[in-house]
Amino acid sequence: MNYPNNIKKDNYKINYGNRGMGLEQDLNDTNNYYLQNKTAVIHKKPTPITIVSVDYKSRKDAVIKEAYFKTPSTTDYNGIYKGKYIDFEAKETKNKQGFPLINIHNHQLEHLKMIIESGGIAFLIIRFTSFNETYLISAKKFLDYIKINKKKTIPIKFFKENGHILKEKYNPRLDYLGIIDKFYLEGENYER
Amino acid sequence: MNYPNNIKKDNYKINYGNRGMGLEQDLNDTNNYYLQNKTAVIHKKPTPITIVSVDYKSRKDAVIKEAYFKTPSTTDYNGIYKGKYIDFEAKETKNKQGFPLINIHNHQLEHLKMIIESGGIAFLIIRFTSFNETYLISAKKFLDYIKINKKKTIPIKFFKENGHILKEKYNPRLDYLGIIDKFYLEGENYER
Repeated sequence: MNYPNNIKKDNYKINYGNRGMGLEQDLNDTNNYYLQNKTAVIHKKPTPITIVSVDYKSRKDAVIKEAYFKTPSTTDYNGIYKGKYIDFEAKETKNKQGFPLINIHNHQLEHLKMIIESGGIAFLIIRFTSFNETYLISAKKFLDYIKINKKKTIPIKFFKENGHILKEKYNPRLDYLGIIDKFYLEGENYER
Repeated sequence: MNYPNNIKKDNYKINYGNRGMGLEQDLNDTNNYYLQNKTAVIHKKPTPITIVSVDYKSRKDAVIKEAYFKTPSTTDYNGIYKGKYIDFEAKETKNKQGFPLINIHNHQLEHLKMIIESGGIAFLIIRFTSFNETYLISAKKFLDYIKINKKKTIPIKFFKENGHILKEKYNPRLDYLGIIDKFYLEGENYER
């Protein structure tokens, strides 16, 4: 199977512990903060792989000797917040013009669509590493945009106009649930 | 790290495609049925692993050459049904007396507790392969039981008296959401 660049980059990052993982590390720290404070139970899913061979030296040490990365069929993050089902995908891009759609799989877009239809809270968190700007965009707005605009890259302008910028703080690192409170759970929930 | 036997067995099963995976295969079939019928969006999480080395022959073929199984920090299954967050763990045991607690990690029990506290629907699906009997048991009842009874194995009697037997059907294979409708979502939700 052919994977977009970012998949391998992400896996590369995952390979070597949790050092310098950028957005993923920020989100893990944030989710740990939410977990410890009993704000929300949101976890990143493990990287989907197909295991071909495993060496069982002993009961303690099973070593996977051959495995392959699978195309994810869902988003990376889900969980529960204020009794609501939360589901999102997080991506980084170095691109200066916008977000290249090759970074996200069709399966993941279909998944987000199904979550919206099921009454869940679905969104994307996208970081433009060139400007170090991170946006939360509702999955509905994102999907509506790509349905109409058949572009390979979503211009950064779209995120500036329709998304919510996520400022980095000390704790929680990226308080995306603050945005969810404001734009999904309070008032008219217009983003759903 | 030391893994209970079942973890390796489960991974063994996962290693070789989807053949003869028993309960896991039944649940995957059931979840696919729910997904296709837009009943619910529930997926099994990938097996958590730590990747140590990856061989990138070409852009297309990244081969994981060394990886290790990680102790799961959450349950294997979660998703959304009728707007509600669903979370459960599924286990098989050959044991004839009951369910050995070594089959489930403390992290997973803590996770189930947090899901209950967060207002999610949390349960376990346990199959006794010796009798080919599968039970759905509410996480609350399961956790309450092990809090009081400091046993290494939960007797099958407990599941017969407090759980709900899941009969295998053609489609959906194991209609566990039928039980959820009846005992969680209708009436007094007494299982929560």
